[in-house]
Amino acid sequence: MTTTVLVCLDSPHEFWRFGQRHAERLRAVFPGVAFLAVQERDAQRHLAAADVYFGWSFHADWIRSAPRLRWVATPSAGVDHFPVDELRAAGIGLTRGYGYHARPVTEHALGLLLGFSRGLFLSQRLQGRAPWWKDQIAEVFFDLHGQTLTIVGCGEIGTHLATAARHLGMHVIGVRRNPPRDCSAGTGIEWIPAARAHEALARSRVVVDLLPATDETRRFFDAPTFGACQPGTVFLNLGRASTVDHDALLAALDSGHIGAAALDVPPVKPPPPDDPLRRHPRVVLTPKSAVFSHRYMDEAVDFFHDNLQLHLADRPLNGIVIPLPDGDRHV
Amino acid sequence: MTTTVLVCLDSPHEFWRFGQRHAERLRAVFPGVAFLAVQERDAQRHLAAADVYFGWSFHADWIRSAPRLRWVATPSAGVDHFPVDELRAAGIGLTRGYGYHARPVTEHALGLLLGFSRGLFLSQRLQGRAPWWKDQIAEVFFDLHGQTLTIVGCGEIGTHLATAARHLGMHVIGVRRNPPRDCSAGTGIEWIPAARAHEALARSRVVVDLLPATDETRRFFDAPTFGACQPGTVFLNLGRASTVDHDALLAALDSGHIGAAALDVPPVKPPPPDDPLRRHPRVVLTPKSAVFSHRYMDEAVDFFHDNLQLHLADRPLNGIVIPLPDGDRHV
Repeated sequence: MTTTVLVCLDSPHEFWRFGQRHAERLRAVFPGVAFLAVQERDAQRHLAAADVYFGWSFHADWIRSAPRLRWVATPSAGVDHFPVDELRAAGIGLTRGYGYHARPVTEHALGLLLGFSRGLFLSQRLQGRAPWWKDQIAEVFFDLHGQTLTIVGCGEIGTHLATAARHLGMHVIGVRRNPPRDCSAGTGIEWIPAARAHEALARSRVVVDLLPATDETRRFFDAPTFGACQPGTVFLNLGRASTVDHDALLAALDSGHIGAAALDVPPVKPPPPDDPLRRHPRVVLTPKSAVFSHRYMDEAVDFFHDNLQLHLADRPLNGIVIPLPDGDRHV
Repeated sequence: MTTTVLVCLDSPHEFWRFGQRHAERLRAVFPGVAFLAVQERDAQRHLAAADVYFGWSFHADWIRSAPRLRWVATPSAGVDHFPVDELRAAGIGLTRGYGYHARPVTEHALGLLLGFSRGLFLSQRLQGRAPWWKDQIAEVFFDLHGQTLTIVGCGEIGTHLATAARHLGMHVIGVRRNPPRDCSAGTGIEWIPAARAHEALARSRVVVDLLPATDETRRFFDAPTFGACQPGTVFLNLGRASTVDHDALLAALDSGHIGAAALDVPPVKPPPPDDPLRRHPRVVLTPKSAVFSHRYMDEAVDFFHDNLQLHLADRPLNGIVIPLPDGDRHV
């Protein structure tokens, strides 16, 4: 029986859109598979025939319309917006993507770090109004070379960032719940378990938050955690908004204890016009653009292609969040 | 007879100031040398006794007050503000510094490139006023990985930048008058002679100007040269202002042919309040801060220390702009 894949990867942005060339590529490789690409508003009524769903999001109430569905695949790195419990209860597997977020996030993080360390954001603020702003930049800049960077939630993306930061002469501490046992893997990262994160923060000039959104990481960066940072610390959140207590961050910025911050994920999206973060002179907000890459969908389709091949061969998939049930749940 | 070194390295910025610890360090290593550190306004009247001068600048009319002077040393990388012809005519040698400008300039250049490529400068401009600016960033960002960078005036600093850019997955073209013959030196730079610079520009997404100020490089970046660039090119000048025709640059920015520009060296310093570069939405001006480093004077004194050792041993110096005369010109 033909496998049917329902694709629901629309976007206002070309690089996040499943286009004609992606469909042609998959159809050429998988002649026995039916691919149907639809817009999100039409997804539910096409789910009846779908064995596989490949999309940006999936709503819990779609499950009852999807009797054949065994596997939901998303290109996203995070799945906190997916109904994980409901999918698991329905016996539907879930996979996320990886391998193609690390490069853009690394470029984004380095750009933000260097933008603060070289005084570039301050320069841009002052160039239109200060007579000459050399003294102000001399006051705030620092050499990134030789500094310590702590990456909290240091997984695949963080490890990629760590390699780039080490090329710039930084020392990198990786914080995660369970650091890898084999520390000799050549990444050069000093691993510290999350339970001792404050030790790492106390030694760091710059801190990057790459935590996923889970119950455990909720408001991980709160007042005591910001208090554990060095005075003047530069803080970046490229993870999830829920991992930061933004009131505590604002207070730490206003006291000067946190020297500067960049947030790729505002607490509310879009931030309200009067959000003080918008106008803070030492805050840069980016519009969840850290994973922007013109190669995004090409690479996400490559990843899905490999997983579909594994799926058709009944082999374990990559990026498993919920394992697929053995055999056909409808038999 | 005692050698006397007159040091004139004052600065409003601590990291550019010859301080007590630098003097103590040199005195400990060279007990037979007299070191005298003075402010620039007092330099001329102390030159009578000086064999060596180590300073930020030197004025042509000081030469007649300096009968014993054989060597002028500066920590600067560029010597276009020194009276080179007059020093040569007076038989006084001149050395410049190198080796310690490359790292900060590389950090500065990467920060500016990533600031444009990730849309960070635009984000900062929009965060205070746009409801949500994701579409605007999606429109302008690009992946730095895989792009071609041309460095015009690619010497020691450019080669350091090239290495960092290659770590980020860029292809690097180095343009200089006489490219090194041995291209297998492992830098991975594709060399193109300056006479064929337009070929390099036509292939590049980003262009960094590191040219020194000479008669030959004057307005190297003029209308035809900007015209040879790809539409949308990001242009950085971290070299000298004289190497750029700023009217041509503004015209190319306004037509959109040059996508964005950052200038570390404005045509007039400080730029007048109504300079259109100050308010251009796709221009970032930094206040000649590309070489800012908190380790600057420590490293510059290390460099001078090595050179002084060579000088006392009558061996050739590093960083020679004008060779020192053989023997004592006053014998």
